[in-house]
Amino acid sequence: MNIEMIRAAAERLEGHARRTPLLSSPFIDHLAGRRVFIKAECLQHTGSFKYRGGYAAVSALDPDTRASGVIAFSSGNHAQGVALAAAQHGVPSVIIMPSDAPRLKIENTSAFGAEVVLYDRATEDRDAIGEAMAKDRGLTLIKPFDEPQVIAGQGTTGLEIAAQARLEGVETADVLVCCGGGGLTSGIALALEADAPGLRARPVEPFGFDDATKSLAAGSIQRNARMSGSLCDAIVTPQPGDLTFPIMQRLCGSGLVVTDQEALRAVAQAFLRLKIVLEPGGAVALAAALFRRDQIEGDAVIVIASGGNVDLDIYEQALKTLKS
Amino acid sequence: MNIEMIRAAAERLEGHARRTPLLSSPFIDHLAGRRVFIKAECLQHTGSFKYRGGYAAVSALDPDTRASGVIAFSSGNHAQGVALAAAQHGVPSVIIMPSDAPRLKIENTSAFGAEVVLYDRATEDRDAIGEAMAKDRGLTLIKPFDEPQVIAGQGTTGLEIAAQARLEGVETADVLVCCGGGGLTSGIALALEADAPGLRARPVEPFGFDDATKSLAAGSIQRNARMSGSLCDAIVTPQPGDLTFPIMQRLCGSGLVVTDQEALRAVAQAFLRLKIVLEPGGAVALAAALFRRDQIEGDAVIVIASGGNVDLDIYEQALKTLKS
Repeated sequence: MNIEMIRAAAERLEGHARRTPLLSSPFIDHLAGRRVFIKAECLQHTGSFKYRGGYAAVSALDPDTRASGVIAFSSGNHAQGVALAAAQHGVPSVIIMPSDAPRLKIENTSAFGAEVVLYDRATEDRDAIGEAMAKDRGLTLIKPFDEPQVIAGQGTTGLEIAAQARLEGVETADVLVCCGGGGLTSGIALALEADAPGLRARPVEPFGFDDATKSLAAGSIQRNARMSGSLCDAIVTPQPGDLTFPIMQRLCGSGLVVTDQEALRAVAQAFLRLKIVLEPGGAVALAAALFRRDQIEGDAVIVIASGGNVDLDIYEQALKTLKS
Repeated sequence: MNIEMIRAAAERLEGHARRTPLLSSPFIDHLAGRRVFIKAECLQHTGSFKYRGGYAAVSALDPDTRASGVIAFSSGNHAQGVALAAAQHGVPSVIIMPSDAPRLKIENTSAFGAEVVLYDRATEDRDAIGEAMAKDRGLTLIKPFDEPQVIAGQGTTGLEIAAQARLEGVETADVLVCCGGGGLTSGIALALEADAPGLRARPVEPFGFDDATKSLAAGSIQRNARMSGSLCDAIVTPQPGDLTFPIMQRLCGSGLVVTDQEALRAVAQAFLRLKIVLEPGGAVALAAALFRRDQIEGDAVIVIASGGNVDLDIYEQALKTLKS
């Protein structure tokens, strides 16, 4: 896993992935007590950064292997990314999703042409299901984060941030990344190491599902006690990956943790001040900028707004926070 | 009023206005029956394209004149654009707003440092109030649309569309523009004439406030019967401008008209499929692409999503359309 793989992924993504804007608002700056730059990956194809990793991985397969099709397991954003990338390459995809995933994500994954297989998050092991199906049908498994080409694809976000931060005159800053298994966080960390060494990636997680934060503090991989019960479904994973954790350990600053309620308030501020739609899991980095000011250094901070595939009732709940 | 003024405005706006992305979604394409490209000006500073015209006009003043300050009358988006542009030039601004303008727009205009003066839209003449105050205090009036430098600033949107459409391989298409007094529509029309002659601007208006559409059909300026009663407050104006109408007449295709309910449904689709926040007046062009398919030609259409400064209760009303 190295920077050359990220640069190669960026070349394959050229003309496919969208170069998302780096947004800002004086109102957000005021709330956060420093300049805040928001990398709006919710505007990426499929509504999240996951399209980058999905496309990078599918495009990296040799054509014969790819022709048999791909399989992925995901709560929804990786699912959509892989499904669209497979469709764009004209190959079949099977996506294994938890039965409690947001309905919108399940519907979209089907709409992108994937065969969707649901499983019970509490009682079944998605890895075992995925590997068995991959073997049965000759599908190539595209893991959601612990896979070099996926990390390389997500890392292209970091190449763009390095260039965009330079244009804004930001040379030293924390880069807060919504973190599940660490694919985006480790990919961005590698890209920043090469292209913007003054920028430092830091994972942000929901309270109770802070495996990366705890792992970084302990110096070894720690596992979450639970796997459900967060509004931030997009970034709930059992533990950091075997590939992603060593990268995070070498390059990242300490993790930050926010509550579901803070994530909802960040969703509402993104609506009000940035005019972008975020899901709670895609808003935890913005929440950390707004509500963990004392844990951040410097006069500027960059946050990833990683996804916007939110169900309507959750979004209405977020908007209600503006009334209190 | 010519293309050179638009190019000069683009140079002054460089490093200030945001180059907004051209978005798309296969789901929107499916609903519209053709490819739809959405120019997301809701992501512009102040949440609407009006910042372009405001900044272009304030930056065009000679420094001595500018130092005395500027004045504008607006239902809210032009207000915010001029207020922010004045603040960035370090000069005072007075903004005259209707008392029934969305609360968010009034609050933001104050927050950008402007002195806000409210008037009654039904009984008072905003032009008369504005001109009197301008005279009393030595302020320069920045009209919302019938002003060459404002048209030039809005026209920079068209320069970007011309370049972005070329990258997408779109050479011939209607460009649907949310239309109030015609500043954005005429500016874009002039830019397209120069840089993308296969693209044709067409105004889109709310039902009952379709002065531009009627004027284009009649060949002379027509006035709306009413001045209030639309959810699309951003684009309710008495009639096309004396400067903007001749440009529209020479360059634009026929106008399109949508209902408030269709505008709300477009706001909801922008939430669901594009992850951008629109106000109803900023969504009428998207509504026309979705609900006036038969009145549009070609296999692709470009729409301007012109603003996102929406009050919460209206937005909740829009999201409810997804449940029916």
